[in-house]
Amino acid sequence: MTVAVDDWAAKVRAGDVRAISRAITTIENHSAESEELLRQLFPHTGKAYLTGVTGAPGTGKSTLVDRLAAYHRKREDRVGVIAVDPTSPYSGGAILGDRIRMQGHASDTGIFIRSMATRGFLGGLARSTAEVALLLDAAGKRQVLIETVGVGQDEIDIVRLADCVLVVLVPGLGDDIQNMKAGLMEIGDIFVLNKADREGADRLEEQLHAMLSLVMPRDGWHPPVLRTVATENRGVEELASTVEKFRKHFESSGQRRQKHIELWQNRLIEMLESRLLEKVLGGKEGEARLRALAAEVAERRKDPFTAVSEILKGAKSDL
Amino acid sequence: MTVAVDDWAAKVRAGDVRAISRAITTIENHSAESEELLRQLFPHTGKAYLTGVTGAPGTGKSTLVDRLAAYHRKREDRVGVIAVDPTSPYSGGAILGDRIRMQGHASDTGIFIRSMATRGFLGGLARSTAEVALLLDAAGKRQVLIETVGVGQDEIDIVRLADCVLVVLVPGLGDDIQNMKAGLMEIGDIFVLNKADREGADRLEEQLHAMLSLVMPRDGWHPPVLRTVATENRGVEELASTVEKFRKHFESSGQRRQKHIELWQNRLIEMLESRLLEKVLGGKEGEARLRALAAEVAERRKDPFTAVSEILKGAKSDL
Repeated sequence: MTVAVDDWAAKVRAGDVRAISRAITTIENHSAESEELLRQLFPHTGKAYLTGVTGAPGTGKSTLVDRLAAYHRKREDRVGVIAVDPTSPYSGGAILGDRIRMQGHASDTGIFIRSMATRGFLGGLARSTAEVALLLDAAGKRQVLIETVGVGQDEIDIVRLADCVLVVLVPGLGDDIQNMKAGLMEIGDIFVLNKADREGADRLEEQLHAMLSLVMPRDGWHPPVLRTVATENRGVEELASTVEKFRKHFESSGQRRQKHIELWQNRLIEMLESRLLEKVLGGKEGEARLRALAAEVAERRKDPFTAVSEILKGAKSDL
Repeated sequence: MTVAVDDWAAKVRAGDVRAISRAITTIENHSAESEELLRQLFPHTGKAYLTGVTGAPGTGKSTLVDRLAAYHRKREDRVGVIAVDPTSPYSGGAILGDRIRMQGHASDTGIFIRSMATRGFLGGLARSTAEVALLLDAAGKRQVLIETVGVGQDEIDIVRLADCVLVVLVPGLGDDIQNMKAGLMEIGDIFVLNKADREGADRLEEQLHAMLSLVMPRDGWHPPVLRTVATENRGVEELASTVEKFRKHFESSGQRRQKHIELWQNRLIEMLESRLLEKVLGGKEGEARLRALAAEVAERRKDPFTAVSEILKGAKSDL
């Protein structure tokens, strides 16, 4: 099997589309193979620049990502796109975005596009996304674009992966600045006012500037507001160069290294969590045991602390 | 110490405000004492009815909770209110809501109100909230109202604790139904159209009904839409009786027991996670070690899987 993984890793590094696709499926399934594969690929990562693109539904994020991808392709940079559409936690159904527009790139092997929507029993979407980003990095994609609907904690965790975060807004969508998540305001490195030809763009920009004046600049970077009309490719080039400016700014300030250490600190915690849980509760037996204990606790026949201690006692030898 | 905890638990059960306050602080700090205290109190829980109240900022949730609390107090039910204001994950600052209006109850010992806003390094807000709800349950509060801003995964986890979830909307806030989180639509047991004297109430109600017609009823319960003007106490009584109707509906269908088992299943997983992490990474030493490893990984001197294995190896004997 290790020989097979060696071979697989080599194909991923060479940019083989089928090998990459298969690897992503393995990552989404949290299979043991994915760990061995990523372990082998890891030393070849760290070269990609990750741009996160987030915003409410209807802001035109996907078109914007599409245009940015095209921009990088023109400059011969290889591009990876990860579009994250989280499964609703209740219905279990995936709301996959319409990726058909991406078919313009279908014949271009320098770009790899993947939608992700799986949320497992014991693993988060943020973890899978991070691993797929590493994979695309190892596969030589110098620009990785991560697109997510910016609403929940999950999505915020996902964009935290990125080196540069674009927050996309549009005029007249009812997303008055007052209703905007404070968190989004604080994670945005660059604000994009898309569909800027619509009515209300000036007012929205004014509001944005007013809000941004309250946000502390990080290391001398004041998040700028850029106007785009992605459907007409307007403002995209300027946006891409602003991302580049941001990149240079942070590379020289040493903040990028700092951010990566913090990021890995969080990642290691997440990995520890899922590793421990898999050991303790993995398999059908573990699940059944958990369910039986939960019933005892729900009926007040056992307190939850004792239940947890019992699970740990049983698992200790396996760790 | 156990004697002290015995005494403390007795005071909590008697409804002693200082004992309860001190217990909440202990819970927020995840101190070892809180576990012993909750262990002792646990057999006396299971009698409170938990109502979750969620909605965007500006929907008047707090006033509504205030009015519901007053309604229950009039009927001699003891009431606990937990207002959750999550710390922004970035600024670290707590955005505490204005609880001054609650001072109308200040002289009433039958009601206990607490704002929570702490999000720790290794523990979630949902966990603390769940533990505080148990505490108030043991303290004899028959009605526990949990108020949260309904946006992120954190908040959704919090309202899942509740036996009955109220989703609050207002006309003209720009929260068109289309922009409403699908998750909120699915967790609402009762929808409250607050500030119903405002323009646009009819249209919002129409939209709501249209959306709700697409949601599968759970065990024969079709989430109703109620109109309130909380500031004038209009519609509050009807809302409270609808909650009561919902309660009876689910008690007879046996779904409440099922929901509680699932709830405890998730809670046990969370407790396991934090217990394991505390063992593995607890203390100053653990944190420093984690940071050093994260730096090695960020610089590609070590892969993250090896780092996690090393942490686990070191901790194995302590589990």
